[in-house]
Amino acid sequence: MNEFELIAHLCRGLPTNASTRVGPGDDCAVLDLGVPGRWLLFKTDAVVEGVHFAPETDPRGVGRKALARAFSDVAAMAGTPTHALVTLGTSGARGVTWLEAVYDGLAALARQFEVAVVGGETTRTSGPTFLSVSVLGWVAADRCVLRSGARAGDGLWVTGELGGSLESGRHLGFDPRLSEARWLAETVSVHAMIDLSDGLAGDLQHVLTASGVGAELFAEAIPVSRAARECARAGGKAALAAALADGEDFELLMAVPAAEAVRLRDGWHARFPDVRLSLIGKVTAGRELRVRDRGGTRRLELDGYVHFRQP
Amino acid sequence: MNEFELIAHLCRGLPTNASTRVGPGDDCAVLDLGVPGRWLLFKTDAVVEGVHFAPETDPRGVGRKALARAFSDVAAMAGTPTHALVTLGTSGARGVTWLEAVYDGLAALARQFEVAVVGGETTRTSGPTFLSVSVLGWVAADRCVLRSGARAGDGLWVTGELGGSLESGRHLGFDPRLSEARWLAETVSVHAMIDLSDGLAGDLQHVLTASGVGAELFAEAIPVSRAARECARAGGKAALAAALADGEDFELLMAVPAAEAVRLRDGWHARFPDVRLSLIGKVTAGRELRVRDRGGTRRLELDGYVHFRQP
Repeated sequence: MNEFELIAHLCRGLPTNASTRVGPGDDCAVLDLGVPGRWLLFKTDAVVEGVHFAPETDPRGVGRKALARAFSDVAAMAGTPTHALVTLGTSGARGVTWLEAVYDGLAALARQFEVAVVGGETTRTSGPTFLSVSVLGWVAADRCVLRSGARAGDGLWVTGELGGSLESGRHLGFDPRLSEARWLAETVSVHAMIDLSDGLAGDLQHVLTASGVGAELFAEAIPVSRAARECARAGGKAALAAALADGEDFELLMAVPAAEAVRLRDGWHARFPDVRLSLIGKVTAGRELRVRDRGGTRRLELDGYVHFRQP
Repeated sequence: MNEFELIAHLCRGLPTNASTRVGPGDDCAVLDLGVPGRWLLFKTDAVVEGVHFAPETDPRGVGRKALARAFSDVAAMAGTPTHALVTLGTSGARGVTWLEAVYDGLAALARQFEVAVVGGETTRTSGPTFLSVSVLGWVAADRCVLRSGARAGDGLWVTGELGGSLESGRHLGFDPRLSEARWLAETVSVHAMIDLSDGLAGDLQHVLTASGVGAELFAEAIPVSRAARECARAGGKAALAAALADGEDFELLMAVPAAEAVRLRDGWHARFPDVRLSLIGKVTAGRELRVRDRGGTRRLELDGYVHFRQP
């Protein structure tokens, strides 16, 4: 069982209630608390030393990343984050200066997006430092985008460039695509959206599974980052493989009706001239994930980045 | 710096916003989301293997405890929990059966209190297993009880019996005092309330600091648990010291105006005949925490249980 199968297995049969619009299995939980026209988004996420950041990473980057990851999940629903809570577990080997810098990085990002950090807890651990972040946010009830709405014929679009995020440091410094996601949901009919944390192939598969569809990717259209190309030249994995399988891009992947393609491209370039937007494939009726290049079409075997494997 | 000084230090200067009624430093954050007459409570908390549970602890108890701790914080504000999220970090040394049992324990408690578990995340760690839980809840805006409202002359009351929670297993199996807390807030003017997670002395000190007052405890009136008395007889610390300093009682401590003492005691026994309620002291104008026994009155030097010390 990999991470995704495991968590789906564990979440089977969890209790729900009438105010829960979306429970486990999407980027955020979606709750209807009775505020007219608005749903509350609720998300928790953790970063762990040795997994999501190296021991020598600038602690400001650690705090920033912990919060930015959760903001990216709010972006994937087209929402706006409003409040955050932090739990920090450490062995005490980290001095106060290090912990202050983690909080500084976190607070700076919160300020940038006008989010209140409404509490912190510390706890002891004998193991690596971890930082667990919970975030609340709002989304307009008629604009909330799930993973499950992709339909055959939709175009698949991705923001930015993919691959090499760990090598380039993007995983620490990225800006979550919050305004981009809101603009998208306001401008076109986004059928499905996800943020790319586990790699394009893996995250696209989440959308396909949730929507009960397949997809065909256009290999030449996938926007490969400079870092992934440089790594490939230096003897690392092929650049396309990096763009497909590297984790932690924190870009948006979405399914949009084909008829809205021109309006989307036009509007995007006017609104976000510095951010690439690429049409990288289409949703298909079959359940397979296939990739097409000059050599033909084949089934995509590449796994996304999987954080966790269970024996 | 101990855990409490550290977290207060780290939380200084965190960004806030207009919808935040209470930020860091109380049992939960309190948010006004525009729902008439109601505030949202928001809390995160973590349990770590080797700190909050032993490696051999029944995993159902681990899951239950992780959630019950957060519910206890909601109780301390006189609120009702509604939704929870779970993040589980593990090295993979724990098999699926163990993880399932953690979720089973957690889900059973959620069902008992009609709380929806709306998502789970797993992450890898090379260290001890940790379980971070986030909880949302509602509280009537005119019934929300903070730590900061204790006034000189108030009586100090505590539910249940204190000390020996780790030895008796209560820390795994306790029922959070949710209905008791709501009844209290509906029945008398609770000036301040906190749940006892760090030990009576330490948690009372949090209330005193937040309220800018002192207190005098009546040593003979402090309800010592059977487990604490048995430990003392077996050569452990004195039973009163255990009741003052042991952590993880998860009982309620509150400050109530003296004039309401009789009404409180009367109503409580009719409503909760099986739960002890003890008047254990009074709030004083000075800032000191003192304890009175047959030998006189002295300053209380005993520390509450402190999870975490920072070099």
